[in-house]
Amino acid sequence: MTALQRAKNELAVANRILVRQGVFDEDGHISLRHPDDPNRYMMSRALSPAFVAPDDILEFTLDGNPVAPDARALWVERFMHGAILAARPDIHAVLYARSEDLLPFGVAQSALRPVIASVGDMGTRVPAWDIADSFGGSTDLSVSTLERGRDLARCLGSDRIVLMRGMGFVATGRSLNDVVRLSVYLPRNARTLAAATGFGKIAALSAGETKARLAIDPESSAMRRGWDYWARQAGCAHWLAD
Amino acid sequence: MTALQRAKNELAVANRILVRQGVFDEDGHISLRHPDDPNRYMMSRALSPAFVAPDDILEFTLDGNPVAPDARALWVERFMHGAILAARPDIHAVLYARSEDLLPFGVAQSALRPVIASVGDMGTRVPAWDIADSFGGSTDLSVSTLERGRDLARCLGSDRIVLMRGMGFVATGRSLNDVVRLSVYLPRNARTLAAATGFGKIAALSAGETKARLAIDPESSAMRRGWDYWARQAGCAHWLAD
Amino acid sequence: MTALQRAKNELAVANRILVRQGVFDEDGHISLRHPDDPNRYMMSRALSPAFVAPDDILEFTLDGNPVAPDARALWVERFMHGAILAARPDIHAVLYARSEDLLPFGVAQSALRPVIASVGDMGTRVPAWDIADSFGGSTDLSVSTLERGRDLARCLGSDRIVLMRGMGFVATGRSLNDVVRLSVYLPRNARTLAAATGFGKIAALSAGETKARLAIDPESSAMRRGWDYWARQAGCAHWLAD
Amino acid sequence: MTALQRAKNELAVANRILVRQGVFDEDGHISLRHPDDPNRYMMSRALSPAFVAPDDILEFTLDGNPVAPDARALWVERFMHGAILAARPDIHAVLYARSEDLLPFGVAQSALRPVIASVGDMGTRVPAWDIADSFGGSTDLSVSTLERGRDLARCLGSDRIVLMRGMGFVATGRSLNDVVRLSVYLPRNARTLAAATGFGKIAALSAGETKARLAIDPESSAMRRGWDYWARQAGCAHWLAD
Repeated sequence: MTALQRAKNELAVANRILVRQGVFDEDGHISLRHPDDPNRYMMSRALSPAFVAPDDILEFTLDGNPVAPDARALWVERFMHGAILAARPDIHAVLYARSEDLLPFGVAQSALRPVIASVGDMGTRVPAWDIADSFGGSTDLSVSTLERGRDLARCLGSDRIVLMRGMGFVATGRSLNDVVRLSVYLPRNARTLAAATGFGKIAALSAGETKARLAIDPESSAMRRGWDYWARQAGCAHWLAD
Repeated sequence: MTALQRAKNELAVANRILVRQGVFDEDGHISLRHPDDPNRYMMSRALSPAFVAPDDILEFTLDGNPVAPDARALWVERFMHGAILAARPDIHAVLYARSEDLLPFGVAQSALRPVIASVGDMGTRVPAWDIADSFGGSTDLSVSTLERGRDLARCLGSDRIVLMRGMGFVATGRSLNDVVRLSVYLPRNARTLAAATGFGKIAALSAGETKARLAIDPESSAMRRGWDYWARQAGCAHWLAD
Repeated sequence: MTALQRAKNELAVANRILVRQGVFDEDGHISLRHPDDPNRYMMSRALSPAFVAPDDILEFTLDGNPVAPDARALWVERFMHGAILAARPDIHAVLYARSEDLLPFGVAQSALRPVIASVGDMGTRVPAWDIADSFGGSTDLSVSTLERGRDLARCLGSDRIVLMRGMGFVATGRSLNDVVRLSVYLPRNARTLAAATGFGKIAALSAGETKARLAIDPESSAMRRGWDYWARQAGCAHWLAD
Repeated sequence: MTALQRAKNELAVANRILVRQGVFDEDGHISLRHPDDPNRYMMSRALSPAFVAPDDILEFTLDGNPVAPDARALWVERFMHGAILAARPDIHAVLYARSEDLLPFGVAQSALRPVIASVGDMGTRVPAWDIADSFGGSTDLSVSTLERGRDLARCLGSDRIVLMRGMGFVATGRSLNDVVRLSVYLPRNARTLAAATGFGKIAALSAGETKARLAIDPESSAMRRGWDYWARQAGCAHWLAD
């Protein structure tokens, strides 16, 4: 299998995992930098992520244009993925989801922070982006242009996650598994944080603990333990076979 | 397939989708204006919505009477559907559900408002109806007569949704997909709003944002993305085949 | 099928329904007055309710003793069922469950009351029983003797439900469907009430509304709508065939 | 079947039950003292618990070293299991899980206590361990050395459960069923306690009631009722056949 074909298969698996884990619903998309060309990325056509198969993965340039003409519908948010990958050479994968457990943090602008060890690598700062700040109060909230995507990328800065009011969040990863793993744990962390908020004083991970978690190789076997299990749960482990 | 048969099939699919998505339980009903005659509508006989098939869809006049005599049991709430379709020529589909996430808003008369983009088209105002206001404090709460249905329709006015104390809600749509889609997202919005309430100040969608969301064609491919996925999840996609 | 065999089959179906609906877990039991002898009742042997089949249903006298000798293990709570059926000739079915959504009301002695129409027939008063009041603070909390069962029956009085601290609740019914239906809706009412508590002032059903709901025949087709659907969901509808 | 083979099979069943019951996710591990040698214990190799089969169970000495050389990856937390089994001869099984419902209690240091009868045998005291107290604020939070495991065991003392900030909890049992049963009920107790906290004054089990629950034989048929049902639900009851 070529590196490109493997990347397509893994991206399809990521879509299915994220649906099965409740991060994606009938919406949600994930992109991966091209394995051979850092100025390109791959992403599915506009399709409910539960339906995405390797043949639905297309190639794009960083300004969000498809490399080859394609008659199929494309996500308008592809510009956003490109803008983030252009702004952040250290990042190899980008995910947008409207996971319900994170939405309240964007809506109430409550600080999202790591309280469970598994998301220690999210960092201690999560910026919150409000489309109205730059584009006024009459948009449909969708990040559907390159301009909006670049504005969001600026808000993300050098962090790993950005909350989007009324829309959900964008997470980034050093690898595909890195962003999938983080995104599966983010809702659990959000639920734990919300529940603990009702109890009193919260002990979040310290800066030192966050740094120690970030230092763990995202491709180590411990960090990849979920991937194989989730792929089997999602019924698409066969796309990972050699 | 005739327009009428297609409408029956789609209405059966809508019933199954709403059960699968947790909007309906063993109760709940949805009506659709007749494709050829605006003075008639279609709705299932009284039957748990998980059981509804195209043959269970009957035709009614706007006063809630069946067009053809039928020995099978009918929903007493059919009058309510007719009253709303009569009062609102702009509306083509009406749904009643007792989705658990919306019930607290009717019980505590807490303001329901859009905080997630996907329900921006619900509008900014959701009236709350209390049967006791017009019919006294000794009813069984069911909207079982044309008089009660008309009173509810007056409370709905020109809005899209009305909360009913202790009973749930009625939602309306410009098309079948429009009301199904909105009703699937309403519980998610309610849960997000409830969770955010515990965090502090809430940023709901502005009037301008709501207007922008309402301007999106409810039959566009982006707005119909859920329908196909949900129909397949509900195991009844075959009723949609040509 | 004899009335007795039918009663056994329906009681087995009730067990399976209550598991499927999340009212029972690996524990929970339900009894039914004997169709031919008001001084007897039927109940399963001690067995996870998900496993109960018609052959597991035994007959008991109202003091909790099996009518025929049986080597199989029996629920120690059978005395409680008998005590309630003895104290309440108007009641034909008794259920004990530790449904998680009702537990907090017994633990915090918060008033459980009907806020959704479907449980209007629960009445306006729900007594709370604490085993420590009559039996001291060193019991294992289980209602395992006739004496404890009779004490609980006195606390229940003429109401339909009694909360038991740390244990769950007992519900009663005029028929088997009546208590199953009520018990399926009680957790929904509890969740709605708990959520509305966070919002502010709560509009519970009035005494008049409760009376109107109680006046509905529990064996009417509207009140039996759930039963058939739930039996099919639980995979045991065949036990109901003639 | 030898006692050793039976123990391996039961430990595999325990892993599958704990996944099915939501106590384990793609992580979580459980150990059992060797049936023939109290200075050894058994535990799976590092593997998502949903995948664990009898052949994945290895033997260890109490200092966490495998008895026989094995090329397969091992849990770094095996030292922790050994340290607890070494410190507590009365204990035969140890479990670590990051069950979401218990995490908030460790994060907010809110007192976890028994409010439902089924967890009365957890005792009245649940110590909370913070890795930063002994190992500073720059660890990755994992209990990955014998030194950390021994520190945790000291915090556990003579109790049954210890909360670990940001990581979850460790529970212990007098038998395998004892710790599995307790761990299945702990999240239910945590949810009930969290919900009741919103209602007001909480009536937890008294010391006398806790003592009475602890006096029940953990291998009695009432206490083993869940095991068979859960094993069947988890699809691995065949590993228990003679």
